[in-house]
Amino acid sequence: MIFQNDLILRAARGEDIERYPVWLMRQAGRILPEYRKVRASLSGFKELVETPERAAEVTVQPVDLLGVDAAIIFSDILVVPEAMGLEYQLIEKKGPWFEKTIRTEEALKYANTDFDIEDRLSYVLEAIKIANKEINGRVPLIGFAGAPWTIFCYMTEGQGSKTFSESRKILYTNPSLAHELLNRITDVTIKYLKAQINAGAHMIQVFDSWAGILGEEQYAEFGLKYMDKIAQAITEVPLTLFAKGAHNSLSKIVKMDCNAVGLDWNTDIVKTRSLVGENKTLQGNLDPCALYSTHAEIERLTNNMLNSFESKRHIVNLGHGVYPDVDPEKVKTFIKTVKNYEIKY
Amino acid sequence: MIFQNDLILRAARGEDIERYPVWLMRQAGRILPEYRKVRASLSGFKELVETPERAAEVTVQPVDLLGVDAAIIFSDILVVPEAMGLEYQLIEKKGPWFEKTIRTEEALKYANTDFDIEDRLSYVLEAIKIANKEINGRVPLIGFAGAPWTIFCYMTEGQGSKTFSESRKILYTNPSLAHELLNRITDVTIKYLKAQINAGAHMIQVFDSWAGILGEEQYAEFGLKYMDKIAQAITEVPLTLFAKGAHNSLSKIVKMDCNAVGLDWNTDIVKTRSLVGENKTLQGNLDPCALYSTHAEIERLTNNMLNSFESKRHIVNLGHGVYPDVDPEKVKTFIKTVKNYEIKY
Repeated sequence: MIFQNDLILRAARGEDIERYPVWLMRQAGRILPEYRKVRASLSGFKELVETPERAAEVTVQPVDLLGVDAAIIFSDILVVPEAMGLEYQLIEKKGPWFEKTIRTEEALKYANTDFDIEDRLSYVLEAIKIANKEINGRVPLIGFAGAPWTIFCYMTEGQGSKTFSESRKILYTNPSLAHELLNRITDVTIKYLKAQINAGAHMIQVFDSWAGILGEEQYAEFGLKYMDKIAQAITEVPLTLFAKGAHNSLSKIVKMDCNAVGLDWNTDIVKTRSLVGENKTLQGNLDPCALYSTHAEIERLTNNMLNSFESKRHIVNLGHGVYPDVDPEKVKTFIKTVKNYEIKY
Repeated sequence: MIFQNDLILRAARGEDIERYPVWLMRQAGRILPEYRKVRASLSGFKELVETPERAAEVTVQPVDLLGVDAAIIFSDILVVPEAMGLEYQLIEKKGPWFEKTIRTEEALKYANTDFDIEDRLSYVLEAIKIANKEINGRVPLIGFAGAPWTIFCYMTEGQGSKTFSESRKILYTNPSLAHELLNRITDVTIKYLKAQINAGAHMIQVFDSWAGILGEEQYAEFGLKYMDKIAQAITEVPLTLFAKGAHNSLSKIVKMDCNAVGLDWNTDIVKTRSLVGENKTLQGNLDPCALYSTHAEIERLTNNMLNSFESKRHIVNLGHGVYPDVDPEKVKTFIKTVKNYEIKY
């Protein structure tokens, strides 16, 4: 595949780049009025996720309207548990909610692995194909999935939580159930990511949103072990691992078989670089709240971050998904600042 | 004041101890059936907080029923913003909710400092006096307050949040408003803590529940700066600072003018000890979810933690508040294991 702009792939692989590539987590959806228009024409978020033409449309919008260096397929990490047999709803102002949860062996019947991914998640794969047609080689398309630990959290807790104490309880009361479920999620996730690659994803990111709620030992046993299986399996395209809040485990993550490591906004880039050397690309990590500042201040804060880079191995992003009420003009200032920055390496 | 058991005060000051002292955050309230009975006899959590006789009663319950080495006054960190002029409600299954928020200079009228703490928060001070009468010198009584940053979060966001993006927005858009509000909260908090000490609190803990959502620099400017003012001001009794999730700032916190530093369950005790030397007492940090294990497993996990201590300067606790559905018998196993442990230092 020949791209007009493949900066992000080169940066991920540690190859030469003319400037740092930039994209934003949650760039598809949330902030653009053009996205809200599409969303308003449908019954809700889930219908949008499940309608390939429209999902593709909002995937491409930030490429056209913001000038990012990559698209990311518009979808949700919870399509995986749903495909396995655990349906979810998205409740306004509350977030995801599962009617059933998996807290016993008996409930494992809602965590199937024996189904045809290409069929059951065809809407995502179809959206990838349509989006690539529309992008037409301008930039690469990123596919993604939740990390097994994060998907486990939702399947066991049944909803968002500050502590995920129901999920974490299982690690103490029934670790073999936890491992069984994590293994199943991992198997399906690997198949799903490979299907995304077959459909046209040029890069993969795995999101471990709830990495930060486990201590180092438990995260190694119930989180990284399964993230590592994914890292071993995904060899076809560059892979980014983003374990939010896993500060204690960063030294382990940077040794995993991936190209890039996502950093949340609380992670020190300079310290992480000294930990990782030149072995990995770092992705991130401007505080999403920085985009509430004035244009001049956004420019200053973005340049500060860029000045802290001591390597060409960086992909610029926020340290978390862009917040819904951020002015798209502010996002453009962020992107423009990155594009104007003269790379030193 | 002569105590039958002043282990916790001696451990905080780094003096000799026969064994490690133990208590649990949220031990007053939540888990005991005897607490639920008191709570059910009143209209709700707030009435309990505001009724000194009953607040004192549930404060003393864990001393009688669990055998902890300290009592902590039953109250809420949100009594401070309420005293300043910002009323809150506690909504079942949702948490605190403020009708008004402070996001403009004009709204600072809901953040008064010019009032008589001893009068407006008399119910807390009265509860401290009654609790001490009932405890009658068996163990010390801990007073507490939220750290300015955490109180700021609630006063500006108006409710709990995963990201506190409204609170953090202000740090970028109106830092002088942030500092003004933080200064006001700090002034009131210092007066409030001194009033608690005058009323009979033998030790103070400051909780910074939302420390972990700021990057290191912002937490230094908007969090630690004000925590430090409190640490400088509270000289009468031992002081514990607990900044949950502030892993990047631990090296700064252990240098502050306090006796003890609380560690959440994700913080490595051995690494923290090597950072702090013998200058501070460490408090914590068993994962609250460990108390869902079997009795034998709780014993094993607690002994593991105790074996990791390389100093006498420890106060045993969980790494977060005890969860509501934990069996009190499991809590007793945790406490008994600590009491039976032979200290090496």
